[in-house]
Amino acid sequence: MYVVIMAGGKGTRFWPRSRAAKPKQLLDIISSKTMIQETVERIEPLVDHDRIIVVTNKQQAQELKAQLPQLPAENIIAEPFGRNTAACICLAATWIHQRDPEAVMAVLPADHYIADREAFYRCIHKAEEAARTHSTLITIGIKPQAPETGYGYIEFDRQLDGESQTCRVTCFHEKPDAQKAAEYLQKGNYLWNSGMFVWKVSTILQEIEKHLPELYSTITAIEPLWHTPDIEQAIISAYERTVSISIDYGVLEKTTNVLTLTGDFGWNDIGSWSAIFDLSPKDENENVLRGDVVAIDSQSNLVHSPKKLTAVVGVSNLIVVDTEDALLICDADKVQDVKGVVELLKEDDDRKKYL
Amino acid sequence: MYVVIMAGGKGTRFWPRSRAAKPKQLLDIISSKTMIQETVERIEPLVDHDRIIVVTNKQQAQELKAQLPQLPAENIIAEPFGRNTAACICLAATWIHQRDPEAVMAVLPADHYIADREAFYRCIHKAEEAARTHSTLITIGIKPQAPETGYGYIEFDRQLDGESQTCRVTCFHEKPDAQKAAEYLQKGNYLWNSGMFVWKVSTILQEIEKHLPELYSTITAIEPLWHTPDIEQAIISAYERTVSISIDYGVLEKTTNVLTLTGDFGWNDIGSWSAIFDLSPKDENENVLRGDVVAIDSQSNLVHSPKKLTAVVGVSNLIVVDTEDALLICDADKVQDVKGVVELLKEDDDRKKYL
Repeated sequence: MYVVIMAGGKGTRFWPRSRAAKPKQLLDIISSKTMIQETVERIEPLVDHDRIIVVTNKQQAQELKAQLPQLPAENIIAEPFGRNTAACICLAATWIHQRDPEAVMAVLPADHYIADREAFYRCIHKAEEAARTHSTLITIGIKPQAPETGYGYIEFDRQLDGESQTCRVTCFHEKPDAQKAAEYLQKGNYLWNSGMFVWKVSTILQEIEKHLPELYSTITAIEPLWHTPDIEQAIISAYERTVSISIDYGVLEKTTNVLTLTGDFGWNDIGSWSAIFDLSPKDENENVLRGDVVAIDSQSNLVHSPKKLTAVVGVSNLIVVDTEDALLICDADKVQDVKGVVELLKEDDDRKKYL
Repeated sequence: MYVVIMAGGKGTRFWPRSRAAKPKQLLDIISSKTMIQETVERIEPLVDHDRIIVVTNKQQAQELKAQLPQLPAENIIAEPFGRNTAACICLAATWIHQRDPEAVMAVLPADHYIADREAFYRCIHKAEEAARTHSTLITIGIKPQAPETGYGYIEFDRQLDGESQTCRVTCFHEKPDAQKAAEYLQKGNYLWNSGMFVWKVSTILQEIEKHLPELYSTITAIEPLWHTPDIEQAIISAYERTVSISIDYGVLEKTTNVLTLTGDFGWNDIGSWSAIFDLSPKDENENVLRGDVVAIDSQSNLVHSPKKLTAVVGVSNLIVVDTEDALLICDADKVQDVKGVVELLKEDDDRKKYL
């Protein structure tokens, strides 16, 4: 098995810590390790370093190599610009295919939290087996813990395949409103879409060829050029010509050859500052305080302020994030609006330096 | 007339902007000028520069001279350490006395806000006249606008002296609780104690001699040494031996020779961050934003952050103050607890640098 880690995210929801050149996956969000370091370390018991491929973008590639010195340089693929997940996955599939056309490929996001590693390993192994045996696309769904409106959902057929514990997917659903999310949770045959996939390289290439034939021919033409001096220009040229579409929309929602496997390993995509608050250990006043922080009469705050003394007095339910050149103070129930700050900064030439 | 400005305050309530070496009076709290600059500028139409004396402490003297280049150096008196207002006022009185024993002396705090200058000038002139005519101590009381618990109160006899519009003081009251403050406001014969005094130098020296004879003899022994090389050591030596007591407690509350004159000129002692909020012009969302601040869905906040981009999202009624090495986030109704932060810092050797 090979593991492809998709590490091209922008992470505007973690402004001001995440910036264009340093998004979530390159930050130490939950532990003292960065998210990508956590992700790579987590899969090291599953595969050797030369079977871990990280796909990122040009701006982040250097920092990423510095954070992951254990990986061979050729295993870090820098996209010249983003073309969504279908192109990214197809590109990585050709890289693996020229080495081992029969390999199984797991696709994982770079910046998710997983509480129970052993359960995660068991899930990946089951998915690998199912992908190999049935030549199907496996998408890992997460047993929902709450009526979350921030995730997409996978609806599945209740009839389990007893042998592999996989279910046939009947429909992919976009992020629901609160009422629909409650319905999904109550019905029981809905899973959170984790963005983790397992399949044989040959299977996904066939499926891409079938549903996105132009993308397929443009990207797979690159395969013979891997590890030659021409590869960089070839990728630029292919990406300039290819369509930007997600693997979900372009392939998974169109094929019938997709199964879902239920994962239950304490997964969280860490989509906002309040997710970090939820996942972090709290002090006796339910505060998460990072840095030299004095808290008086204050409860349930997340304070990230590593560079200066910070005092919070009489406040609760706040997210406070201080960095070298920018400071955020946000109500914990309004963390989705941090994206709005980034949008405002984009519109103002004098403030683009803060992106 | 001479004006003595008492500028020795510590201003812990404005942490983290105010520090031991830079208290409130040395900061640009309300306008682009510092409080002491505002105070000196305000009295310039009343007296010449050589009749303005500023009493401060050793730590602040240099900064104060830099902020007030128009004053003669000899008019800035640096106390070696604080000995409360009786010693301070007696010291300044000897300075004036050796120049002009018949002078009237107005004592003003360095760090108060006055909205209506003309009304203030009229009040000072009336006080000067009364002090000269009747050889009494005049304390300026402020017509209360609200049942404030943060000020001391002056109770006066309703019978006005028609000629000078002064009233005889019947009692000085400490800061009251909310119930008493409401009573005072309702009764009508109570004024806020502003800490502004006007009297002849000869009158205050006689009163100090009568009520604080030891302090009087210790401090007035300095008088012949003003403008000699021995003055600095003489003050240290006198201050080491003298009692630390306020002019209110040591003299004003003990003498019967004290009148109050009612001032009504938009006075505020700016005792906390929320006073600054109250006095500052607001934007359309009732925010006071200083620095490059992005406010989304946020109302009635004071943000002072001159050095970095600051975003507030979904918050209201907050005081946010960012400085080079310290950051405060405080509920506007809890600003009195900022003193508690300073107390905590004092107890911790590693954090004393933030005082």
